[in-house]
Formats: sequence, C-alpha cells, structure tokens
Amino acid sequence: MTALAIDIGGTKFAAAVVRPDGSMERRTEVPVGSDPTATLASLVREVGAAGAAGVGIGSAGPLDVVAGTVSPVNIPAWRDFPLADAVRELVPGVPVALAGDAQCMALGEWWRGGHAASRALLGIVVSTGVGGGLVLDGVPYLGPTGNAGHIGHITVDRNGGLCPCGAIGCLETIASGPSMVRWALANGWSAPGGQPDARALAADAARGVPVARLAFQRTADALATAILTTAALFDIDDVVIGGGVSGAGDTLLAPLRQAVAKQAGLGFLHRLTVTRTALERDAGLYGAAALVLPGETRSPNRGS
Amino acid sequence: MTALAIDIGGTKFAAAVVRPDGSMERRTEVPVGSDPTATLASLVREVGAAGAAGVGIGSAGPLDVVAGTVSPVNIPAWRDFPLADAVRELVPGVPVALAGDAQCMALGEWWRGGHAASRALLGIVVSTGVGGGLVLDGVPYLGPTGNAGHIGHITVDRNGGLCPCGAIGCLETIASGPSMVRWALANGWSAPGGQPDARALAADAARGVPVARLAFQRTADALATAILTTAALFDIDDVVIGGGVSGAGDTLLAPLRQAVAKQAGLGFLHRLTVTRTALERDAGLYGAAALVLPGETRSPNRGS
Repeated sequence: MTALAIDIGGTKFAAAVVRPDGSMERRTEVPVGSDPTATLASLVREVGAAGAAGVGIGSAGPLDVVAGTVSPVNIPAWRDFPLADAVRELVPGVPVALAGDAQCMALGEWWRGGHAASRALLGIVVSTGVGGGLVLDGVPYLGPTGNAGHIGHITVDRNGGLCPCGAIGCLETIASGPSMVRWALANGWSAPGGQPDARALAADAARGVPVARLAFQRTADALATAILTTAALFDIDDVVIGGGVSGAGDTLLAPLRQAVAKQAGLGFLHRLTVTRTALERDAGLYGAAALVLPGETRSPNRGS
Repeated sequence: MTALAIDIGGTKFAAAVVRPDGSMERRTEVPVGSDPTATLASLVREVGAAGAAGVGIGSAGPLDVVAGTVSPVNIPAWRDFPLADAVRELVPGVPVALAGDAQCMALGEWWRGGHAASRALLGIVVSTGVGGGLVLDGVPYLGPTGNAGHIGHITVDRNGGLCPCGAIGCLETIASGPSMVRWALANGWSAPGGQPDARALAADAARGVPVARLAFQRTADALATAILTTAALFDIDDVVIGGGVSGAGDTLLAPLRQAVAKQAGLGFLHRLTVTRTALERDAGLYGAAALVLPGETRSPNRGS
C-alpha cells in the first residue's frame, strides 16, 4: 500500500510516492507555470500513481474542503478550482483527500518529524501568510468545513491594523514575512543588498541591526500570544514552526520561546515545547500522504 | 441504564438521576456548607445511585482531570481534593467521569439544549469567572490534561490588565461579573440598591444608564473577540452562553451578536449563531450524565 502525496504551493507543486513505513520515493517538484492544471497533470504522470491506495493533497488556501475546491492566492488561474475532482480524473478509482497546506504540515510533523508523542500538536507555517494545523491524538482536526486551524486570522492586537480578511489585528498582519518587511521598511530599515525580503531581514537581525531585531521581536510576541491562545483552547503540548520565516532559526525561535514563557499564565500552558520543523518542505507531503494512509498502518516515528 | 449526575458549584452542589432519553429525576440541590465532603456524601445518599451505570461529575475549577482532583476557588476546604475517588467510594463498582463545569455545560447544551445539529459547539459560562467547553461532532473535547476550552484565559487585550493567572488582558479580566462591576464602579457607577453586583448592573444597563451599558458593551466586544478566535481555530458553527451574567438576556446578547458580526473576517466565521442557554443550571447536570452515557444510547434532542 502506497499513497500519492501532492503539495500545491503558490509557486511550486511537489509530489511523491509515500509508503506506510515513511519512506518517500520519486519526489518531484515543478514550478506552477502559466497553466497550473496542465502542470498538475504532467506532475502526476511523472511521479505515477500505479498501485497507490489513495491520493492525499495539501494545498495553499483559501480552499473549500467540503466542495474540494481551491483558490490559492498566488495562482490566479485557479479560483474555486475543483482540485479534488481534477485529481480523481487523473487517478481514477482511489480515495482522494484534500486539506490545507498547514494542516498537512502539522500532520506530517506528527508522523515523521519526531512529534508523534504529542497528544495535541499545533503546526504553524510562517511564510507569505500564516497558517496553522492541529493534530489531536494523531488525527488531523480539520473542522466541519475544513477551516480549523486558521491561526493567522485570530486577533492578537485589537488596536492593530485592518487585515485584508476584514478583521482587526490578525496575527498575519504582524507575523507574516511581507508584514515584517513592511513594518521594518516603515521604521527605517533598508535592505543591504537592495532586496527587502524576510531573508534579508533575518540576516540583518542575526547581525544585530536594531530595527531588524525589533521586527523579529514583534513577530515573536504576536506568535506567542496566538500560540498560548491556541494552547489554552486545545490543551496543546507541542508546537512546531515551519515556513520561510522560520528559516531564520534562532533569530525567531529564541525570542519566541522567551515570549511564550513570559506570557504564559495557567500551569498547563508551561509544558509547551516550541521547535522548528525538521522536515522542511517534506512535512506537507508526509501529511498529505497520511490523510489517506490509515493510522493503523502508518509506522510511528517517535523522536526520529 | 441511568447515570447519576453531580454538579459541583462554588456555593451549591446539585445531583440528579438522568436517563438516556434525557429525562431527569430526583434533582436535588444543596448549599455546600462547612463540610463539603459530608455534603457530597449526603447528597449522593439522598438522590441515590441504585442501578446507575456510571457517575458523571462536572466541577468548578481549577481541576486536574487526569488525577481526578478539584480545587474550586470558592471551596477552600477542597484543595487537590480527590473528588473522583471520593465518589468511587460512595458509588462503588461503576465508572466515574470528571470534567469541568463549562465542559459539562457545553455537552449538556449539545445533547438537551437544542444544539445537537452543531458539529463544533462552543459553550461559555460567564459568571464569577469565564469558562468554556467544546463539543466536536457530539463528543466533548477535553484535551490531554482535561484543560481544553480555557477561553477565560486567552488574551483579548495585550495592553490590558494583569490577570491573577499571570497572563495579560485575559477575557476574564473584562467579561466576568466581578470584572464588569469593578470596571463600572471605577467609572462612576453606583448601584441603585447599594448592592453592586452583575444583576444590578444588568438592570441599570437595561434602563439605559450609560456607564452600565458601556460595561456590557465592553464585555460584548471582548467576548466577541474570544468567540471569533475560538471559531477560527475550531471551525465553530454554534455558540451558547450561560452563567449568571447571561441572565441579562438581550442586554448582553444584542451587543454581543453585533460585535461578532462586526469583528468577523473570513467567510466561514459568518455562519456562527450565538444564543443563550435554554437549560440554565441543568445544562451541567445533563452534560455530566452524558460523560458516562454512551453516545449511541443517548437520544438526540434536535431543536427541542
């Protein structure tokens, strides 16, 4: 029994064949290109689905899990695109499951990232946006409409700015890569190489440039509030952070862990561990596969 | 098959025999008294557990569901009191289950309060404190340590006051009855009858006294933020509010519904319904019973 795992990102599609023992084969990554539907078809053809017991898909959002449609922000050609049905046509006769990219990341980290001991895991992807996913006793919690885990759109600053979603002071307005860069630029930062992105900001923060350090402190404080909020509601014991901004490593993780320790109130919130993804981009593929590989057959990977 | 349901409140204990069809018999309520352990024993004796298939207990917190101990704030005689074991001695040989009072309230509302159509229900008790409980597809979500649903201790105002729990700007520092009264008194309110409590504040708000109305608006705004946060994380479709402060009825519910509608961002958050408890104090007893009556045997009560 194998699964075909597909990861729909905003700029790249990835796919691989994943076995219940966690081995991954034929991993392939391609740029989205101008015709994402054709890109998807050729990717599935290239990786192959022969013998697959099912296809699991993790996709950038927004998506409608019930309808099986996706509208990834960076793929304008796909608006309410029936991704699940498109994959069913490409790989007929097997179950197809769809979930959000951060939901798949969390599930992948639980299964293969050394987090299988967690009974309530929160995965966060800090990137162009901020997404979240929850794994409760090894089962992904997607919610009735598939929208569970929307940590990027909880209000962490009621006096903050308007978010494009319509709410005020969402985590994403502070902690996403573009939000951090925007704030830093507005507060006097100029990128050394002229390329003002989150990577350059992280490099400057690591070098001790004050405004860059403050940008990461601000993100750490907001992330800590959102993490502790989620922990108080789900009784979370473990948090794993992925996404491009987490590539900053301890530049983000050190102030984040300090902020979590400082902001935590009730006793059960103090057991939280916060670590960075060990699987990087593969987490989403593992999680997508786990959507269709039944838990009883998947081999656990406690602690890797 | 029947269940003995026990509700441990800060000032009163209640118990009843509950059948799978939702009928409740021999409901009895007694003041806690100076010896809560003796009060519990006489209550259980009075209501009787003959033929009960299990005992479900909902208790005021803090509590440790794993250890089966409770330390209700208003019952100083009980600190880390082994409530589950004490009940096991009183009613030997049957399963005993313990959960928080707000967790039981939410489960009771799901089963008997007309909320059985909800796939992700949030119950909130606004009283001396603010507690929460979650029911996902008819199953209470208690969390690994039993602490899930702690909505009263999520930060809704990062510039707010210090909460006794150690965190900043918790919902409870704004929305609990005592917090509302404290804020109103600090802002010039004087209770008409000289009794400055949440009930008098609600009466003044209903009469249009500006500072009293503002106190409820403030609570509504904070509750709305906490509700939408929980909804974004759990994909909540239904919210039911109980507890003494909810006795204010539309004085609380009208501004609360407006605040939820105003603050909601993403599309899936706009389907939320917010209503007041129909079961009042019985919700906790029904929920406690449901902890030990298997879901397959409980008759649903959709809409009542």
